[in-house]
Amino acid sequence: MGERFNQLKDYLAELQNVNTAAGLLGWDQQVMMPPKGAQARAAQLGTLSRISHEMQTSDTLARLLDDVGAEIDGAAYDSDEASLLRVAEYDFEQATKIPTHLVVKLAQETILAHEVWAKARANNDYKSFQPTLEKIMDLTRQSAEALGYKDNPYDALINQYERGMTFAQIKEIFDGHRPQLVDLVAQISKNTDKVDDSPVHQDFDIAKQREFATWVIEKFGFDLEGGRIDEAVHPFANSTSINDVRITTRYNDDFLNPAMFGMMHEAGHGMYEAGVSQNLEGNILASGTSLGVHESQSRMWENLVGRSRGFWTWALPKLQETFPQLKGVTVDQFYGAVNKVQPSFIRVEADEATYNLHIMLRFELENDMLNGKINFSNLPNIWNERFESYLGIVPPTDTVGVLQDVHWSAGLIGYFATYALGNLLSVQYYNKAVQDHPTIPDEIASGEFSTLLGWLRENIHQHGRKFTSAELTKRVTGEQINSQPYITYLQEKFGGIYGL
Amino acid sequence: MGERFNQLKDYLAELQNVNTAAGLLGWDQQVMMPPKGAQARAAQLGTLSRISHEMQTSDTLARLLDDVGAEIDGAAYDSDEASLLRVAEYDFEQATKIPTHLVVKLAQETILAHEVWAKARANNDYKSFQPTLEKIMDLTRQSAEALGYKDNPYDALINQYERGMTFAQIKEIFDGHRPQLVDLVAQISKNTDKVDDSPVHQDFDIAKQREFATWVIEKFGFDLEGGRIDEAVHPFANSTSINDVRITTRYNDDFLNPAMFGMMHEAGHGMYEAGVSQNLEGNILASGTSLGVHESQSRMWENLVGRSRGFWTWALPKLQETFPQLKGVTVDQFYGAVNKVQPSFIRVEADEATYNLHIMLRFELENDMLNGKINFSNLPNIWNERFESYLGIVPPTDTVGVLQDVHWSAGLIGYFATYALGNLLSVQYYNKAVQDHPTIPDEIASGEFSTLLGWLRENIHQHGRKFTSAELTKRVTGEQINSQPYITYLQEKFGGIYGL
Repeated sequence: MGERFNQLKDYLAELQNVNTAAGLLGWDQQVMMPPKGAQARAAQLGTLSRISHEMQTSDTLARLLDDVGAEIDGAAYDSDEASLLRVAEYDFEQATKIPTHLVVKLAQETILAHEVWAKARANNDYKSFQPTLEKIMDLTRQSAEALGYKDNPYDALINQYERGMTFAQIKEIFDGHRPQLVDLVAQISKNTDKVDDSPVHQDFDIAKQREFATWVIEKFGFDLEGGRIDEAVHPFANSTSINDVRITTRYNDDFLNPAMFGMMHEAGHGMYEAGVSQNLEGNILASGTSLGVHESQSRMWENLVGRSRGFWTWALPKLQETFPQLKGVTVDQFYGAVNKVQPSFIRVEADEATYNLHIMLRFELENDMLNGKINFSNLPNIWNERFESYLGIVPPTDTVGVLQDVHWSAGLIGYFATYALGNLLSVQYYNKAVQDHPTIPDEIASGEFSTLLGWLRENIHQHGRKFTSAELTKRVTGEQINSQPYITYLQEKFGGIYGL
Repeated sequence: MGERFNQLKDYLAELQNVNTAAGLLGWDQQVMMPPKGAQARAAQLGTLSRISHEMQTSDTLARLLDDVGAEIDGAAYDSDEASLLRVAEYDFEQATKIPTHLVVKLAQETILAHEVWAKARANNDYKSFQPTLEKIMDLTRQSAEALGYKDNPYDALINQYERGMTFAQIKEIFDGHRPQLVDLVAQISKNTDKVDDSPVHQDFDIAKQREFATWVIEKFGFDLEGGRIDEAVHPFANSTSINDVRITTRYNDDFLNPAMFGMMHEAGHGMYEAGVSQNLEGNILASGTSLGVHESQSRMWENLVGRSRGFWTWALPKLQETFPQLKGVTVDQFYGAVNKVQPSFIRVEADEATYNLHIMLRFELENDMLNGKINFSNLPNIWNERFESYLGIVPPTDTVGVLQDVHWSAGLIGYFATYALGNLLSVQYYNKAVQDHPTIPDEIASGEFSTLLGWLRENIHQHGRKFTSAELTKRVTGEQINSQPYITYLQEKFGGIYGL
């Protein structure tokens, strides 16, 4: 490669270093920082964010991008070089489209909004949050206008998390599987007594939970020489390098699922980041390509692997060694217990069958709010009515209803959809992996995960941000994202468990 | 204050944020980072260091300093404003004096030198390190020339750590107490059987060591709401904010002293950083003023407080509760055990009486190397001869002799002296505190440390980097730094313990 390309690569490596340094400060803030350190940390992150934004929108970068475009003309689309230029151009365009005064305004308003929202949620007081929500929606709408879109301002927003995806596409996908989901959940709700989840609701020593879950994710392939596991109130994964990937979890001493499946989930995110090609290390491509694809990895390890019957034929004896109170529980009983379906109000506690319904509700309301199709004072009623039609229950308060999530106060509009897309992709990718390697389910049932992980690395992880999620899904499965595999998976799985 | 002053203050706050962010990355590297993360961390620190250097030497800063000089003309010397400008001008001058190519060259050579030194030390092979040492000394000499000095290139180097201090001053101070030290150590060496340190050499559970030492430093005033305690191979203190001060320690399971006194030592550093006035938070003044003054704080809490007889009249019963195997040991026996003097080869393990002799040796050799007065191939012999004349013993290998310290390979010439200056200052400051508050020794003997800490905050900590160490010492004690109080303290203390 030529001189200008190397300069671009070096420039972007410096930018990536600033961003990963900020990422580490953010990790530390949630995991290690003493309480009094918050104010200084906000100032440090503010400075790094300003420096990053300057580097991301500089004239130097603009010139490098122009020159390199000419220099590497003709490089293959999937080459490291063409991909770096393509993604760098996209990042530059996105960053320069929103005027700085709007970026600053949104940052300020969301800091204030967080306080207002937290208080409103605590007090079940939607009215006190309503003006703030309207203001955030207005600013977000302005962002969408600045970013540009063809049909719907939502398109400009989802594009930030799932490049190229549109409202119309997502609506079609969601409309295409909502009736089956609603029907499945309704059927299960009539058969709830067929599954007993009391085995996972007992006293479980936290040190032993940590030991077991660590053992599991190390078997999966999470590498503690290139990563860490810590505790955080809101679990997350963070990578400052392909070779330094950290996950966090939260333990309940009377409920096994949150830490056990939470760690499998975060390990899925972590192994994605750790599996990016070492050729891309220190580079803006060294990360997952979209929130949806990221979620496909976490959900695959948590659900397709960790909540499968095969997995527990192998793992239950070990779990019973760790927790002797589980001796006597059969594989089928335990498999049922960790897959209990229960319509509930809180999204983050939702099971596989109900989860996407929580998302669809938010997706529709976001669109209506963005497009002025909603009377904000009526939002809680609309939430509750639609909740009942999807899940058959009515939230008793706004605290467990429209106020439950942090996202809208943070200006993260368009974000929710990616969780549901991740669920769909997890099954599409997994099915393809099993098609390529039919032994995978049997291997999982004997505690062997390297074929699956190897397939994910080869087909998904190594590429980092080279491809959009649509490009990647097409390369991997030959298809577009769609809901049929997910619905089939749910119907078969829960049909079996609940004898439907 | 005027507009330009506020711009300067904001600019320096951003610079400080970059530096404290880098400090946190360094802390994480030594305390939290998984092994494979090292390469990416080096790149991240490289980027932050480059950004910091650019900000520290920019034309923008130069203009701000000029303008503010005119704007705040007449502000009191010790005002926050005049102090900020004064220190900012000094930092700017220091940073712009060394040409960038020399900074880069030194950075590269010291990275290589670290490897060469570590291998030479492991293999007791001084010859393989000699050419590297000569090269580092040559580059350091070039730095000194660039920085400028009046009498001796050493002056330019010590000035980086102890602003305004000179070779001649330090030589006079060292020459002034070396004979008494040598004599004291020789006398003690004839009476070693008078002290039995076997009580501190037993099996001590590490969790209990942690519990006891944490209890002690919280009593001192180390605030865990604004700090942390972790483990590190090479213990150190780090602050990313006045309100986020972290210390580290290292535990031996068969020797009580390293962690117990190590934590008191690091807590002394930490409480200094935490005691800087909140008015200076986020500012380049929010830090200790010099390495020597910093060391005076760590040594005071470790030795003047932690190794005093009074302290153990209070703390021994608690320690005996924690470690029942110490029941039956009297206060006098324990006081002797933690104050055992023993000429030994390794500086970092040296006791109070021998420590400064280790430093004097290095100080003299550094000066001879810098000024071409030494044949490098003869350095080990000179080291060993002088070591015997000071401490009465001869290092059996260069590994425990001339090769033991990392400093020279890192280009840290002039640094060693500050350890000894810290010892001297610790006694000068402590004596003044007791002169102002004669109850302090009795308070220490009843586990009450707030008068001492309050005095330190009022007289030393709050000022941060406002004053040089010489200015500060003069303000606090009315005197210059000198060795008489330290020698008197040692003679009385060890005269008592050893019955001299």
